[in-house]
Formats: sequence, C-alpha cells, structure tokens
Amino acid sequence: MAVYTEVSDEALAAFLAEYDLGALVAFRGIAEGVENSNFSLRTTAGDFILTLYEKRVDPAELPWFLGLMEHLAQRGIVCPLPVRGRDGSPLRHLCGRHAAITTFLPGVWPRRVRVEHCGPVGEALAALHLAGADYRPTRRNALGPGGWLPLLDRARARADEVQPGLARELDAALEATLGAWPAGLPEGHIHADLFPDNVFFLEGRLSGLIDFYFAATDILTYDLAVCLNAWCFEPDFAFNVTKARAMLSAYAATRALSAEERAALPVLCRGAAIRFLLTRLYDWLNTPPGAMVTRKDPLEYLRRLRFHLVARDEHAYGL
Amino acid sequence: MAVYTEVSDEALAAFLAEYDLGALVAFRGIAEGVENSNFSLRTTAGDFILTLYEKRVDPAELPWFLGLMEHLAQRGIVCPLPVRGRDGSPLRHLCGRHAAITTFLPGVWPRRVRVEHCGPVGEALAALHLAGADYRPTRRNALGPGGWLPLLDRARARADEVQPGLARELDAALEATLGAWPAGLPEGHIHADLFPDNVFFLEGRLSGLIDFYFAATDILTYDLAVCLNAWCFEPDFAFNVTKARAMLSAYAATRALSAEERAALPVLCRGAAIRFLLTRLYDWLNTPPGAMVTRKDPLEYLRRLRFHLVARDEHAYGL
Repeated sequence: MAVYTEVSDEALAAFLAEYDLGALVAFRGIAEGVENSNFSLRTTAGDFILTLYEKRVDPAELPWFLGLMEHLAQRGIVCPLPVRGRDGSPLRHLCGRHAAITTFLPGVWPRRVRVEHCGPVGEALAALHLAGADYRPTRRNALGPGGWLPLLDRARARADEVQPGLARELDAALEATLGAWPAGLPEGHIHADLFPDNVFFLEGRLSGLIDFYFAATDILTYDLAVCLNAWCFEPDFAFNVTKARAMLSAYAATRALSAEERAALPVLCRGAAIRFLLTRLYDWLNTPPGAMVTRKDPLEYLRRLRFHLVARDEHAYGL
Repeated sequence: MAVYTEVSDEALAAFLAEYDLGALVAFRGIAEGVENSNFSLRTTAGDFILTLYEKRVDPAELPWFLGLMEHLAQRGIVCPLPVRGRDGSPLRHLCGRHAAITTFLPGVWPRRVRVEHCGPVGEALAALHLAGADYRPTRRNALGPGGWLPLLDRARARADEVQPGLARELDAALEATLGAWPAGLPEGHIHADLFPDNVFFLEGRLSGLIDFYFAATDILTYDLAVCLNAWCFEPDFAFNVTKARAMLSAYAATRALSAEERAALPVLCRGAAIRFLLTRLYDWLNTPPGAMVTRKDPLEYLRRLRFHLVARDEHAYGL
C-alpha cells in the first residue's frame, strides 16, 4: 500500500505551476506499489501519475531511471513517459521528497496469470532489452549476485525464526549459485522486477510496463529468469512449463537466445529466486509490526528455489 | 488504506458485462477510505468508482445508502450517483462482496483546512439536509447517543492503557452529555462523517461530497457538530472560532438554525467528540498490530471533548 506522504493542496498547486499541464481536476492516492507514494493526477491536460520517491530509491539514481523510461518510450516501449516541467527537468521536489510526473497508462494488471499473458510478457521483455541497447548510462545492479551475500549476512542470524534450517539451506544454495554464475553472457538494461502488478493488459493485449525503479545494467537473460519466477509458478508453487514455454519462445522470437543463454537459465533462475527470497526475508525480519506494508512471505521463493535447484537443464523450462 | 479485496480480471470483466458501461480501460486500487475497498475504474463510457463493501457495512442497509445518494444527486447535491446495471439494480456481487459502481467526482480533498473551506462545507451540509427531507426511508444512527454507552462498555476495561484515568473521564463526560441530550430538535438524514477527506474542492469551490456509509436519520444540527469537530480545530487542537463562524453562518444562510438548535450546539459537539473518541478507542484497542490500517489516535478527540465541556454556550462557537 503506497501513500507514505500526504501532499497538501497548496503544495500540489505550487508544484503543478511548474508544469504546462493546465489546471488540477482530481488527485487520489493509489493503493499499489510498495516503494514510493503514487497518486493518480488528472489535470485539464489529461491523466498522469505523480510519484514521490521514498526511502529505498537513491535520489542520485533518479535521473538514470527517468532517462531510461524516456529513452524506452521514445523507442516505442509503452512505459510511463516522464513529463518535463517548464524548466525542462522531469525531476523536482514536493513535500521534502524528490518527485516526478509521468504519463498515465491504460490497462489492468492480471490478478490471475493465464498462459495467454506469458507470451506477450516475453515479447515485451525482449523488446525492452533491444530498445535499451543504445541508452548509454549504466547502473550497477545493487540487488544482483554481488549483493546477495551481504543481504544474507544481515538476515542469517534470525533466518531460522522464519523456518528452521533456512540459514543453512540459503548458505548452500547461494554458494552453489554464485559458484556457477555465468560470465560473458550479453548484458544490457534490465527491468529486474517485471512482476504481474507491473504489466498492464487491455482487451487481452499487453498495454504497458511500469515501475522501472529496480532497473539496472546486468545479464539480459537474468531478467527473463525473474519473469519465469514471477509468472510461471502456480499458487501451489507447481511450475507451469506451458507458461514458461510461451514466455521463452515469444522472447526468443524477438531477441534470439544463444545456446549459452539457454544453458544458463537454471542457474539464472536460482539467482532470481534467491534475490527475491533474500529481500523478502530481510523485510520480513525488519518490518515493524505496525507498518502499513504487506509483508510478503519469503518462503514462497524458497519453494521456487528448490524447483530450480533440481532443474537439470534448460529443458526443465520448456526449451 | 483501503484495498482489502483483490478483484481478478476475469471477475471484473464478468461484473462489467452486467452494466452498459462499454469496455474496461483502467482499474486501480485507491489508497483512501478505511471501511471498504475502492477502485478507480475507467471504461470507454467514462470514469467511475467501484466499491466493494467490507465488514462494517451491513448489506441489508446498502439499498438505503445507495437510495439516499441517488435521491440527493437527483436534487443537485454533488455526490456519487450509483450506476444501475442492465437489470436496473445498482447493487450486485463481486468476489464474494456486495459491490456498486458510482460516478467519479472531480476534485481534491483539502489536506490542510483553511477558513475558506469552512463556509462551503456549512452551505453544502445545509443543502444536503434540505435535499434529504423528502427521502422517506429512515436509518437509525447506530453510532448515535444510544450506541455510545455500549461502545464504552466494550472499551472501558482497557481504556486506561491508552491514557490513565481515561475510563473515568469518559464515564463522567458521557453521563453529563447523555443527561443533557436535547429532545425535539429537527431531525432528518445526516451525513454523520463529513470530514475533510470526504469533501472535494476544485479551484477553490466545493466540488463534491463522498462516503455516505455512516449516513443516518438523526438530529440535523448534530451533523453540524460533527463538522465543527472535524474542520474547526487546528493541528494543536486550538479551536478556530473564525472557521466555526464561517461554517455556521453559511449553514444558517441556507437552512435557518432555530434558537433551540443554536443553544444545543455545545452538547451536540460534546456528543460528536465522544462518538469519534469511542470508535477510535475501540479500534485502537482492537486493531491487530499487523493490520494494514492506520490507527487514528483517540486522544485527539479527548482534546476536542475537553474544549466542548467548558464551552459555556453557543457563543463559544462564534454564534
């Protein structure tokens, strides 16, 4: 749930005066997203999203994120386009936070993933990877493999509170995964968090991608591994190979996957499961009981990780 | 924060098929409201609010609320108009909840109340009271004076956990207030919860009233007492008599206040403060720590109540 900062009407009016967006018509907090405060903003010029950046986002990185979104939007990726103010900047301050206005995207994110969603997601991810190729600035993936051991170190002592033996299981999985981590695979800008609530559909077609605030420069196929984790497990944690095949083949039809990339899928999927398991575990152990945030169960990713650990090769993913 | 129920895209599509509202364009959870799940819904026919009724609202009373809103809207009160489905009914089921679609109102609720807001609120409240006069069905105010002692009984044993001596202070205030409660004042349908987050403004003018789910049939001037509590105290709990005077005079210019109604203001204000103090106290003591709801501090209403307890007469409110 995501309105951490209340915006006074006076502050909003002064903020809007820095844009050519006409007069305010409506302003409502949005209940989705967990990192930032998001508001649906309507002016006489149309519909927009106002984002106030909270805690986890480093202000120094905001120009990189907004620049990537603008770059992708200009190349036909349907993603929020940052709106520049009268001074030409898409980034300013509101209520002591960094703030930006982006365009509103129509569509609805799928609450229940069907196989028909997975092809379009694979295709959109590949298109995003291609469109990002000529965005020059890079951003290190702080939640990539180099970040996992430090994350585990901060959670290890209390990990067994969540499930007995978890710390030991994670240590073993992390060691095996980092030891097998592939080198030399194609890199580029990845979304890194393309979960169902970040993908909109309209009348059965993908209508937009949102929330680029985990984007980074990393192995492209790792992004696909994140999506396989996020889209292709059933609520009972059974892996749905039909969904995976739809996603992978649609991806490969837009951006070909090399033999090396295909072979790396199991270890990349392990890594992606570890990444979400670790951040959820850390949040689980560090979320104060009264906080207005849904704590997501880290063990959902242990279930996924165990599937990937026994996946013999890429054929386990329908390739 | 208010999305308690997740609506799957299939369920939403089936639900919308029961209306003449065209095709789905966008659907987002709204972060405001604490009693129900609210979604901003856009279709090719326009913008709407979808409400799923949760816990506190008694389904048997929904036709009364929706009927009142329709009645008021037809008489020029700018409030959400329930949208009827193809079968003529404004009320149906979605995801195991009662659900209704209402029209979307432009505007922004004032995060910081200024004196210029208070006149329009008084005027709109009076207009609401007049417009409701010929809505025949009635609804007992479960949170009116008859409900306060039972509420206190359920909280008394633990009230002093919130502040030592609170139970005794509340018992005394309640006894004095119920003993002086006025009889014979004009009754009608009241909003009963017209706080700033239920009143929209646009370009300095009141643009709509929302959230009628505490509305009931009760003393009209009690509704004004609720608004005096909700709008006319500063963040430091100082009573702003200029705001109160603006509200009361604007109300009286639309619906005249009798000498009896004016004289009853102090006791009605005490009652209104007690009502919100008691429900907040109950929620405070009964909200599980992990719940995704902001607990509102009951003691804010103790501060207000103490002001009203020493108010000598209606002149304390600027009359």
